[in-house]
Amino acid sequence: MIVLFTDFGFNGPYLGQMKAVIWQQAPQLPIIDLFADVPVHNPRASAWLLASYSDAFPTGTVFLAVVDPGVGSAARRPAIVRADGRWYVGPDNGLFNVVAGRAAELDAWHVGWQPERLSASFHGRDLFAPLAAQLALGGMPEAGLLERYDSETWPGELFEVIYVDHFGNLITGVRASSLDSRISLRIGDITVPRARTFSDVALGAPLCYENANGLLEIAVNQGRADEYFEFGVGVGEPVYPAP
Amino acid sequence: MIVLFTDFGFNGPYLGQMKAVIWQQAPQLPIIDLFADVPVHNPRASAWLLASYSDAFPTGTVFLAVVDPGVGSAARRPAIVRADGRWYVGPDNGLFNVVAGRAAELDAWHVGWQPERLSASFHGRDLFAPLAAQLALGGMPEAGLLERYDSETWPGELFEVIYVDHFGNLITGVRASSLDSRISLRIGDITVPRARTFSDVALGAPLCYENANGLLEIAVNQGRADEYFEFGVGVGEPVYPAP
Amino acid sequence: MIVLFTDFGFNGPYLGQMKAVIWQQAPQLPIIDLFADVPVHNPRASAWLLASYSDAFPTGTVFLAVVDPGVGSAARRPAIVRADGRWYVGPDNGLFNVVAGRAAELDAWHVGWQPERLSASFHGRDLFAPLAAQLALGGMPEAGLLERYDSETWPGELFEVIYVDHFGNLITGVRASSLDSRISLRIGDITVPRARTFSDVALGAPLCYENANGLLEIAVNQGRADEYFEFGVGVGEPVYPAP
Repeated sequence: MIVLFTDFGFNGPYLGQMKAVIWQQAPQLPIIDLFADVPVHNPRASAWLLASYSDAFPTGTVFLAVVDPGVGSAARRPAIVRADGRWYVGPDNGLFNVVAGRAAELDAWHVGWQPERLSASFHGRDLFAPLAAQLALGGMPEAGLLERYDSETWPGELFEVIYVDHFGNLITGVRASSLDSRISLRIGDITVPRARTFSDVALGAPLCYENANGLLEIAVNQGRADEYFEFGVGVGEPVYPAP
Repeated sequence: MIVLFTDFGFNGPYLGQMKAVIWQQAPQLPIIDLFADVPVHNPRASAWLLASYSDAFPTGTVFLAVVDPGVGSAARRPAIVRADGRWYVGPDNGLFNVVAGRAAELDAWHVGWQPERLSASFHGRDLFAPLAAQLALGGMPEAGLLERYDSETWPGELFEVIYVDHFGNLITGVRASSLDSRISLRIGDITVPRARTFSDVALGAPLCYENANGLLEIAVNQGRADEYFEFGVGVGEPVYPAP
Repeated sequence: MIVLFTDFGFNGPYLGQMKAVIWQQAPQLPIIDLFADVPVHNPRASAWLLASYSDAFPTGTVFLAVVDPGVGSAARRPAIVRADGRWYVGPDNGLFNVVAGRAAELDAWHVGWQPERLSASFHGRDLFAPLAAQLALGGMPEAGLLERYDSETWPGELFEVIYVDHFGNLITGVRASSLDSRISLRIGDITVPRARTFSDVALGAPLCYENANGLLEIAVNQGRADEYFEFGVGVGEPVYPAP
């Protein structure tokens, strides 16, 4: 199974072009669209999303993960990471650093292989998709073309909003398990009460809860948290632990 | 075949996470994204959409239908409905009441089964997706865990806008077959002329027509009906039969 | 493989309904979502997009391409085009004229066949999807129902913005290969410098480059080109060759 994790957008041709490449190499391989709208040009916030939303997938899953503002530059190197039995293919720009930091077993390689035809701006299609297909088929790119390296690791929690979902919920980079369960979050100067699920607070009231992937999230019961606070709230907004 | 019908949004991880659960249980099973953007937190409008957009699917189709503002509360019970040979899995909050009202053959069950790991806020993934996969594979959750009940039914037509599509067309909850074919719709104080298709009226002019699923719909020939009327128009806007 | 190319939107039921028709006729057939958001009601801009984004697909691919403001009118005729071994099914309204103009081998037919149930407004589902499935299975609609015709052809380059992508990049209808590589593009009164990839210019600076499908595109390094210029820029905005 290949899982797509990008900032390419569902709109436009990019996801379709990557899938066409994968299916020409590996027909019938299941492909999951996980995220196509992680924060654009933002490998840092995306790194926390990737770690938190990939760990429920079975071992052997291949994540084709591309958030790649430096695409085509010499500085940016393609990477393959194996973390606790899952594979990650994409740019070595920090995107895999939280996955790496949480892994019990970790390997990382830089990739020297290049396809015959490599565009300057779409390595997701030309370079990473063929590598992902090869890994999903159980192969490994030629050893001579891989150079093992020590993957950088980042700390566990990011006290920021890292994603705003379709409902306007504010997903943070903080795992609920990292804090005492009586601790809530403050955003701006407002401390949001901790609750178990939406309907535990009044209609239209805000809550902070452990979301279905273990992250602390700020929502409004049947409303939109991204429009609730007077100050504008978006990706990057800091949050603070609040007793 | 499993058909997804939710208010989760195409963006974000939710559809992908449900598909991953389904494919781990039922590899290669075809999954159709029908709606991921029904009116948010609105099982009532969604109930009319579901009934009108599911009846063209073959018997045996399983609809994984989740519009679930009360997720995680004790009051909201999970349901399985079989209506004219099609299966519906989701919350018992009114979402299946129009399907039920139109069915010639109808069965309904409350589900007692719970997965080992049930989050408080994402039953689409944890509870309903495994049930849908089981049904699509031809199985039925253990009889002892099901409690048969009388499904509530709702009347046939809803004289409101229930969905605004990508073109700005206003889909109503009124079946064309319920009215004489000379009857049109009034919206605000404007009676929109009845026509067969877009090009039967002048460029930029509004029309009311029977859409491809049998519902009355208000559109503008090569324009946007949701921007045409001076009063703002959206989901919930009432419409009236007009001679 | 069937590739979907429409202005129907990812949101709403239309893509799902077409896929359901295809999979009932051709189970397991791979379907690629290439574009669901080409410029609405605009077969002209879409014709250039289609030609530029379809030529990388293998021979035998079937493009189900629908941008069809005249749907349901008598004037608009359904067409099948075979161009260099790829199939195109959709309305004969100009949508295939650039594909035709670039093809070395070209055949075109008008289709007389009609399904038993043909709605007035959704030929994508009722007419073109069954035709596409039949072609993808290797069949050809009954010869007696096809009328060969000379496909109109359009010139090679369109000096306009034809698509704005998720990043705000402005894709033009100009192939990079049609101009000397030192030539750049002017938009409004601004000449945008030519570069190889984003990171070749300063952060926040605009560039004009050959995109991964061979078209000239205007972007801003880690910014949005559609918000960069003081004059509003969208589909249809003219561009000019600039030495």
